[in-house]
Amino acid sequence: MINNIQFNDRGKLRHFLAIEGLSKELLVHILDTAQSFIHPDHQTIKKIPLLRGKAVMNLFFEPSTRTRTTFEIAAKRLSADVINFNISASSSSKGESLTDMLHNLEAMFCDMFVVRHAASGAAHFIAEHISPHVHVVNAGDGCHEHPTQAMLDALTIRQHKGDFSPLKVAIVGDILHSRVARSLIHALNILGANEVRVIAPKTLIPKDAEQLGVQVHHNLRQGIKNVDVIVMLRLQRERMQSAALLPSAHEFFQTYGLTEDILKFAHPNAIVMHPGPINRGVEIASSVADGKKSVILQQVSNGIAVRMAVMALAMGVPLEESGE
Amino acid sequence: MINNIQFNDRGKLRHFLAIEGLSKELLVHILDTAQSFIHPDHQTIKKIPLLRGKAVMNLFFEPSTRTRTTFEIAAKRLSADVINFNISASSSSKGESLTDMLHNLEAMFCDMFVVRHAASGAAHFIAEHISPHVHVVNAGDGCHEHPTQAMLDALTIRQHKGDFSPLKVAIVGDILHSRVARSLIHALNILGANEVRVIAPKTLIPKDAEQLGVQVHHNLRQGIKNVDVIVMLRLQRERMQSAALLPSAHEFFQTYGLTEDILKFAHPNAIVMHPGPINRGVEIASSVADGKKSVILQQVSNGIAVRMAVMALAMGVPLEESGE
Amino acid sequence: MINNIQFNDRGKLRHFLAIEGLSKELLVHILDTAQSFIHPDHQTIKKIPLLRGKAVMNLFFEPSTRTRTTFEIAAKRLSADVINFNISASSSSKGESLTDMLHNLEAMFCDMFVVRHAASGAAHFIAEHISPHVHVVNAGDGCHEHPTQAMLDALTIRQHKGDFSPLKVAIVGDILHSRVARSLIHALNILGANEVRVIAPKTLIPKDAEQLGVQVHHNLRQGIKNVDVIVMLRLQRERMQSAALLPSAHEFFQTYGLTEDILKFAHPNAIVMHPGPINRGVEIASSVADGKKSVILQQVSNGIAVRMAVMALAMGVPLEESGE
Repeated sequence: MINNIQFNDRGKLRHFLAIEGLSKELLVHILDTAQSFIHPDHQTIKKIPLLRGKAVMNLFFEPSTRTRTTFEIAAKRLSADVINFNISASSSSKGESLTDMLHNLEAMFCDMFVVRHAASGAAHFIAEHISPHVHVVNAGDGCHEHPTQAMLDALTIRQHKGDFSPLKVAIVGDILHSRVARSLIHALNILGANEVRVIAPKTLIPKDAEQLGVQVHHNLRQGIKNVDVIVMLRLQRERMQSAALLPSAHEFFQTYGLTEDILKFAHPNAIVMHPGPINRGVEIASSVADGKKSVILQQVSNGIAVRMAVMALAMGVPLEESGE
Repeated sequence: MINNIQFNDRGKLRHFLAIEGLSKELLVHILDTAQSFIHPDHQTIKKIPLLRGKAVMNLFFEPSTRTRTTFEIAAKRLSADVINFNISASSSSKGESLTDMLHNLEAMFCDMFVVRHAASGAAHFIAEHISPHVHVVNAGDGCHEHPTQAMLDALTIRQHKGDFSPLKVAIVGDILHSRVARSLIHALNILGANEVRVIAPKTLIPKDAEQLGVQVHHNLRQGIKNVDVIVMLRLQRERMQSAALLPSAHEFFQTYGLTEDILKFAHPNAIVMHPGPINRGVEIASSVADGKKSVILQQVSNGIAVRMAVMALAMGVPLEESGE
Repeated sequence: MINNIQFNDRGKLRHFLAIEGLSKELLVHILDTAQSFIHPDHQTIKKIPLLRGKAVMNLFFEPSTRTRTTFEIAAKRLSADVINFNISASSSSKGESLTDMLHNLEAMFCDMFVVRHAASGAAHFIAEHISPHVHVVNAGDGCHEHPTQAMLDALTIRQHKGDFSPLKVAIVGDILHSRVARSLIHALNILGANEVRVIAPKTLIPKDAEQLGVQVHHNLRQGIKNVDVIVMLRLQRERMQSAALLPSAHEFFQTYGLTEDILKFAHPNAIVMHPGPINRGVEIASSVADGKKSVILQQVSNGIAVRMAVMALAMGVPLEESGE
């Protein structure tokens, strides 16, 4: 049970490492909590004292200014102290082991580590090796999971569609290397979506795809037929070209890029999502990214709210009182 | 009307992008507000909760640790959350457009962007492309404007001279490339200074200088004759040498450097200003920079107060209640 | 009297620059204050409003992410605003002098500078050149002193041993270049330790060692005989090899590395300390670093508490009221 470590003895959330293995009840609780933080005008998010006195450390072994910033904003909205620990500048270059570094950082009275790492399983490894009073949130580990991204996607879908049970969702792009896709597939299945489809060339589909509970499509038009939600993945051009998995960005756009013409195959009320940053004219046409069906910027806003919810819940703070 | 964008529908300050086009009434209001933040001992500045719950993001496309730090301190004195967004480390390298990046950052519930950019007009461009609830402060755009610097200069002058109407002010150095000079010229004219002179070799004077409302001088002694305020600009040696506009820093000092001997040509009560960092022995002699007429460090302190005032006013917070 | 500058006219702590010359009474007061901040569970440290409204600037001329982070956490626990000023990115490259930079930074209404510098005496120099209302804490200056490290070591020793008067303490490693050793020797002598021994090859012992009030040993087994506390220093491999003071890390471990076998020569209740980060298998065996006698991580925690105490005391805030 890879996820047991995510819960404490009383079955409460302690770390947030992966969607796989979590209950529908917990995911709904996270969504409800996140939703409660967002002002009805969608332009502001309350500053609340839920994590006052707590210290959250951003531990980004893989650089990502944007994701780190969303966690920093989320923690500050909860009134936590935030420390950005710059790994490359630190003593990892001094020959110190990862566990020694972690034990040192937790001894500085940090209450939570937000971890991004290029290696799959890194956040689990860290959660296994730290003290009981420290909490870990996975901000992306290799090709494994990016669970807060999946939750912000789920929140965005719920805001537009309400119930998950009748929904058909298509995820398009490099499924093989995408921790975003992997986490979202788990979340959608747990939340009871009717159908999850992945659409990509064979070289970009994991071999065990169907065991993840998805339908595999190689043709975009067929794949998005009648879907309610389309999630376009970012084409990691640097990765693709080096591996010679694809001939060119241009050819990718011809075959798997989302244009207004292609979009007509989806349900008329379909929404278009993307984890960002978008490659205009590579995986998505500008007119679609900026069009009425696009909810891409709403995803960004929901990312703040979802990260606040996950941090607060993993810390075990009493939400009922302060959240209102 | 380049500055219309600086105001909202009710004519209230919304962005602070340029001095050009602002009213005397507004400039005086900014100066009054800034002055109210400074403790009479000039050594402390109150922490006040005017921007509690607001998030201010420093967006510096051109590196400037010092100016960024003054905005960071100012925002924290106002109790805002401050996020330093490191542009070079972010996904501008991922091929994302500036507007996509901005829309992403504003979707993170930022209330204000403080922007420095090497391109003239960048802050205006950003203000034109963001949502109505987000505010923009220009922290320097190319050779165009650096409006908070002009306001801190004006505050420093007012603290020493009181009324602007009888004042003669000389600005000495590379007027052509200086956003500091350009903003200050506008501010002094709006505030009603008697005379604004610019003093520089012909190669460093903009062709339309006199249309800015200044007297042009090429001789330092003649130019500073009887002036009440001398503003020395920093010699940007890297820029000058590459452009071959000047033979050497040494020769510049001989002709345009401010020494104690030269200073005697100014009014006996003249004050000496400089935006910093100073080049001792290039544009200013050490004895002058450290002398009794120098108010250079007071300018730095006033920079914090002025930035607090501009942020608070642009955010539209009710100053009357909290400022006291 | 090198330390006079550390006190104000009324004899109260104003800067914390060096242990040398401080009184036992003051050191005990620092230890008592630090201890009062630590929760009995040793896992949390209270957030207290002692420095609310104050601004602390980290000025690290020598990069040290870890030490800077401990000061950042300590200042935030005291509710201060913290500004990390990145020196290399700032205008030191613009030809500005150190004193000009300092005067500029203090004019930004900073209340305290935390300074690390590669030059011995740098923190003293800064304390001598700033305004009366600004406070300086030395976070390590060249080979001179690292006084907060000595205080966290002393706090850790006191937590385990109570009284200093009967204690024998051995410091092992590169004494010659170690500001940690130098500060700790002074602290232990002031606090009245029975015996302080330094253990190193002749090339790594300062010539005036015995004038510091220590016994010099070159043999590890003899040196740690019956000691109550062993402080292992980090082997700065880069420094050593360039200076050809030592043949190899392997040979150092053979002669001066702390193993379980060697540890048997110490008192049965001896504790093992290290300022971190540790070099496993160079100056200390893993089994010792992770063993029951090791208090290395407790040192890290005490570092936060001691830095809080030093900052609060140097700022002169009334501890009696808020500390409880």
